[in-house]
Parts: sequence; structure tokens; C-alpha cells
Amino acid sequence: MGEIVKADIITVGNELVSGDVQETNGRFLIGRLRGIGVKTARISVVGDEDWAICDVLENAFRSHEIKLIILTGGLGPTRDDITSRSVAKVTGKRLVFSDEVLAHIRETMESRGEEMHPSQEKQALIPQKAKVLKNPGGTACAYTLHHHGKIIAVLPGIPSEVRLITDQLLLAEIESELHPQKSESVKKIHVLGLPETKIEEMISPDLRDIAGLQVAFLPSPTQVTLSLVAEGAGAEKIVSQAADAISERLGNYIFAEGDGSLEETTGNLLQLRRKTLSLAESCTGGGIGEKITRIPGCSAYFHMGFVTYSNEAKSKLLDIDPALIDKYGAVSKEVAAAMAQGARKIGRADFGLAVTGIAGPEGGSEDKPVGTVYVALSSDEHTMAKRFSFSGDRAEVRERAKQAALEFLRRKLVTS
Amino acid sequence: MGEIVKADIITVGNELVSGDVQETNGRFLIGRLRGIGVKTARISVVGDEDWAICDVLENAFRSHEIKLIILTGGLGPTRDDITSRSVAKVTGKRLVFSDEVLAHIRETMESRGEEMHPSQEKQALIPQKAKVLKNPGGTACAYTLHHHGKIIAVLPGIPSEVRLITDQLLLAEIESELHPQKSESVKKIHVLGLPETKIEEMISPDLRDIAGLQVAFLPSPTQVTLSLVAEGAGAEKIVSQAADAISERLGNYIFAEGDGSLEETTGNLLQLRRKTLSLAESCTGGGIGEKITRIPGCSAYFHMGFVTYSNEAKSKLLDIDPALIDKYGAVSKEVAAAMAQGARKIGRADFGLAVTGIAGPEGGSEDKPVGTVYVALSSDEHTMAKRFSFSGDRAEVRERAKQAALEFLRRKLVTS
Repeated sequence: MGEIVKADIITVGNELVSGDVQETNGRFLIGRLRGIGVKTARISVVGDEDWAICDVLENAFRSHEIKLIILTGGLGPTRDDITSRSVAKVTGKRLVFSDEVLAHIRETMESRGEEMHPSQEKQALIPQKAKVLKNPGGTACAYTLHHHGKIIAVLPGIPSEVRLITDQLLLAEIESELHPQKSESVKKIHVLGLPETKIEEMISPDLRDIAGLQVAFLPSPTQVTLSLVAEGAGAEKIVSQAADAISERLGNYIFAEGDGSLEETTGNLLQLRRKTLSLAESCTGGGIGEKITRIPGCSAYFHMGFVTYSNEAKSKLLDIDPALIDKYGAVSKEVAAAMAQGARKIGRADFGLAVTGIAGPEGGSEDKPVGTVYVALSSDEHTMAKRFSFSGDRAEVRERAKQAALEFLRRKLVTS
Repeated sequence: MGEIVKADIITVGNELVSGDVQETNGRFLIGRLRGIGVKTARISVVGDEDWAICDVLENAFRSHEIKLIILTGGLGPTRDDITSRSVAKVTGKRLVFSDEVLAHIRETMESRGEEMHPSQEKQALIPQKAKVLKNPGGTACAYTLHHHGKIIAVLPGIPSEVRLITDQLLLAEIESELHPQKSESVKKIHVLGLPETKIEEMISPDLRDIAGLQVAFLPSPTQVTLSLVAEGAGAEKIVSQAADAISERLGNYIFAEGDGSLEETTGNLLQLRRKTLSLAESCTGGGIGEKITRIPGCSAYFHMGFVTYSNEAKSKLLDIDPALIDKYGAVSKEVAAAMAQGARKIGRADFGLAVTGIAGPEGGSEDKPVGTVYVALSSDEHTMAKRFSFSGDRAEVRERAKQAALEFLRRKLVTS
């Protein structure tokens, strides 16, 4: 009891090694295991091939570090699905028909108004002495078994089923069998507007003296996330001490913590200040609205959005003088500002937020290359516009433009 | 020459096994390797820990199947980054300073107007006899080396750098060293509006007699993708024969092939028919516009979008009688139809497409539970509206609503 439990995760599926599908069960399981104090040592992704499954499984058994092995995938009714056979082979156990699984398959099919197909009987063949974890979301049941001092958990591959089984059954099973101790404290801090090197420079003097603190920098195209981790006695205190120091140093550059997002923080600020927002989007095509409306309850502050992709739309919907567009171009500080004003006035909101830019791949010029984006914000006091030069392809430029627009608004809300 | 070359991919990084970052280099490399005839046997994801890197590397060396081992990550300047040391250890090679890498680091830093940091010298320590592949996107150089009849390629971990090095240098290196033969033909067909089991029932009689064809079903919440694969002589003919048969059987249920998307197909159809589109979005918040504008050149057919999240916005922007909203509710067939008409008339387009629904988690009622979505399409001939009941959380309901709306329009375009 109390020792750190390490796990190997093995995800099985031809669609994963062919590149047809991005493997995601691994990361989900890592997060849930971490939550109960189990550390993942590695993930292995293999096809539905006996040699490959057996090879990684045998390798996991060779490792003294590993106490828990989780396999996902390959429990279906088709000929492809061979995970249970490989597990039985490596552990030297016979495959036996489980009446419990058989009954579950029959019940699940009945509840769907369908009959059990003969091929599904195969799903009831599991290694002897396995403990069944009934799948609340489908026919393929999970199971656990003990072998050579390790626990093996075998799960189906469908991500929604992995989630259900893990949260409803597997984690409790692991806790009762392996007694992992959650000795880790973790905090994520999300930063915008500063490069990674600058953040490091600013915060490292404060963190130098905090013993036992691990800091990781996780940069992405639109933000830098700081991951603070400490382990053992006092872990929580160490992390919160570090978080306080970082918060004091970086101040408003921090836009969210934990699972928070820029759209959530911005929405909360609007609600707190009892302000409303309308949008005018050109190159982002509705993507800022899409983000704002991800947050349940956004109707409290979000009024409406105008997707004015064409010049005609800008003039007609936002009441922008076509001469202004002719003079400065649709991608300009002046038009961005007029869009924000139009969004605010016609959208009857306290704030009008607008974006116009060249997302590419075509449409760039020497003065305004692809990646040129103007963001503007209008309030009853004044209208501000800002030019950005983003790198990346069309999708990246659009993503950065959305983030920059929301950040422009957040900054205004926190500083005014 | 001519034999199938199999590869192991090992991705290294604490941020990957901690769950902080989703591993994506693996899938990228699989796709590129597949393109030159190399099959990936497995991906191993490990932390920046010597025992873990050595363990999977040794296991890869034990396998006769594997001719190519690609490692990514852990080539940075910090103490964490130990991949080269582990590679040297397992292959029994000394680490030596590479003048070539050192010069590259210095040049890269100079081109950024920065000076080389002493800690970066460590990045020039690579196993003896390694062949350097200079990183066009950063300081950490990749390299290849031969050991026990296999080739090991070591790459940095930053995804954009992995892409540059792979496409500009690594694939050519693998081709010249291992002479893989691309004997595989692949085609993806994307289907909407039929469940997986129904598709299988419809197409299997046609495919039964096509020898050497492998068909995989890849279901996702919004579509089913069929992957057709054949290998060896005549592979292309086998796949195209199967694709033709499927196309004849499924007809308009097929919305795209290969890298195509629903928004691209729909956009192409609008352009072909010289028709224009305006949108009115409620629960999707701009997400349909965001999808439509992913396609470069969409200004040829996309006029404008109204994000009418509030009832006030629906009345004001789309000229909907508030009494209609009061009578039927904002989420109703009648209001959806009025939104589509408003989008078409006020948006001055041939088609008006509208969505209103309850994405959750709140807002559901007995009559209209969470997941209830109405999609409407208005043309100068008539206006049609359709009710959907989607499962899933807020994000899934919204994603399904976007897809259903685009599909409603595509259906209209292909059948009229």
C-alpha cells in the first residue's frame, strides 16, 4: 500500500496503426488513472495481430515497474477481434464461455429490439477466472484478471464505451485491488500574450526556491499552458504556493486555469460586468460565435452575430459605407472598426467585436500578406482596432484570429 | 527489394504520458510511411525516462519483423531530453559532438537574431556514425543510424518540425535505404444517412466476389467512412471496381471521397449550380458558417450568416414575427422555417439554411428534450423543415446539428 502504481496501456486496432483513426483512449485513460494515483509508464498502439499484441503484452509482463496493464480494443464479434485470444495465450489461461457475458449480450440486444446474432457468442469467450465488468454502453464486456502479480484489464475499443466502463466500474476495481495513493497535486495555468521564453524568464526567480515543484511548459499555437506538479506530503501547498507566485507575476496574462477556456473566462467576465456582446466576423466565418456559444448559459451576454463574408454583407448588415471599403479595402483597420461599431449598434450590445483578415491560401498582397488580420472592439466609449500577422495555414490563421479577438475583449474587460 | 517494410514508431515525452498533450506525431508518420509503402506495426508512447525508452527500443530490436524504427521527441536542450543518450546506450555507440549540427544550431539562432545558448551545445551530441538530417524548422537536428540490420531515425518532437523533416528529408532517406514498394491501393468513401449495419447489408453482396479486397467500416458520430484496401498486382483495379459497385449501390448516400468533406462537397455543388447560400444559426452559434468558410473560394457561393441566438435577434435580424416565436417556441418547425426564409430573403441568396435546437445541458422539456434540433431550408420554390433528435453532450449535439444542416442542403442540391 502507498507505493506508486505504474500502468502500461495497450490499445489494439488495425484502424489505429493504419492511420485511419487517431488513437484517443490512451490519453483518456491516463487522465483517469492519474486521478486515482496511477501513473502511466507508456502506451503501445498495435494492430489486430496476434504477434503484435502478444509481443507488447509479454514486454509489459517482463517489466517489474508495471503493476497494471490495460488493453482496449479487439473485443468485437468479427474475425478481426482477437484480443482475448492473445491475452489467454500470453497468460496461459483457457478461453471459456461466460454465461454472465452471454446474458449481458442478449439483454443489451433485446433492449435495442434486436436479436442476438450467432457471431456475437464469440464475445462471451473470455479467459478463465476473469472478472467480468459489464459494458453499460454495448455488448462487448470488459474483464480483469490476475497474472504474475499484475492486474490486466481488457476493455472494448469504442471510446464512449471505454469512458462508461472506466468511470462506472474499472477505477473502483483498480482502487480496491491495488490501493494506489494519490500523492500528486496538479494545477494548469493558461497564459496568453507572452512567448514561452519570456514567461520562463519572468517566473523562474519566484519558483527557484520552491522545493519539490515540477513545472512543464506546454506551448500550443494559441497559448502557453504551465503545468505545476508536486508529489508527496505538502504537495497541494507547494503547488498552490507556486500558482500564487505565478499569478502575481503574470497577472492578466493568465486567462484561465484547469479546464477553463478563453471563451469561458470572457463569458464569465461579461456576465459579471453585466455587459452584452455582438459579433461581426469575416475571415473566421462564424467561428467566434461558435466558441462563445460552446458555453452553456451564454444567452445571458451574447446577443447576436453577423457573418459578413462578402463586402455586400458588410455594407448591408453592418451599415458600412461601401466607399470606406473601396478606399481602405475589406481587410483594414478602418473596416474592422466599422464592423465592430456596426455589430455593437445594430446588434444592440454593449460591445461589438469584429474580425476581418486574409486566411489564405489566396488573397494575400505585398502590403497585406496571408495571415494579416484586423481585430476591432467597439464600446460606447471608443473603438479600437489592432493588426496581427499570423503564421500557419488557413485553419491556423483562423484559429489564431478567433483567439486574438476573444483576448482583445478579455483584456478590455479585465483592465476597464 | 520489394518486400514489405515494417516500422515501429516510438514517441517520447513526459507531456504525452502525463496526458497533458495528445500524441499526434504517430498518426502523421503512419500516413507518410504508408504513402511510400512502409507499414507501421506499432506506436509506443513513453516518457523522457531512460528505462522506458531503452525498454521499447530493445523490444523493437528483438523483432525480426521490424526494419525501421522512428523515434520522435527528447532532442531539446534541457536536462529532460535524453533520447540520444538512450539510443546510444542501446546501440552501443558513443555520443560525439557533431560539427555539422553545431553549425546548424548557430546558423538557426543567428537567422532569428539570437545568440546560441550554452545549453544548446548538448543538442549537437549524437551517436557516432549517425547521418544528420538538418531541421529546416528549428535547432534540434534529426539523424539516422544503422544497427543490427535496422535503420533508426531520431526526430525532434515538435509536430511542425516532424512534418518538415519527414517530408523534406526522411522519406527520401528511407526510400533510398530500404527500397519499400508501394503495393497498396487505398480509397476512402464517406457515407451519411445510413447506419453501419445497413450499409454492410447493402454492399456486401456486391463485394463478396471481389478477391483481395479489404473493407473496413470506420463509424464516427456524424458519418460512416468505408476504407477499401487492396495489395499487390491489380490492387488499383480491385479498389476501383469495389468503389464503383459501392457508388452504384449507395448513390447519394455517399457525400465525399478521400480527403473530401461535407462542406466541400456542398460548396462545390452550390458553385456548380450557380446558387448562393445564407445562414441563420441559433444553437450552432456560427458553426455552420465556420465550416462553410473552411473552404477557400467559398465567397463564390456564401453570402452571409446570421447568428440569432436570442429571440430578439431572430425577430430583429430575420424579420420573424415575435408572435410566431411566442406561439410555437424558438425551437420549433415553424420558427426554423421562418429563420430559413429570413436568411434567404434578407441574406439575398438562393438558399436560406437555418438551425434551431436545444444543445443542452439545460433547456430541455418533455416535448422537446435536449438534443431536439430543427433544420430548415428555404428556396424560391418552397421551405422545408425537419426535426432531429440527437444524442450526446452539448458539443456532440451541435456537431450533429451542423452536419445535418449541411446534409439537408446537399440532398436538395443533388436531387433537384
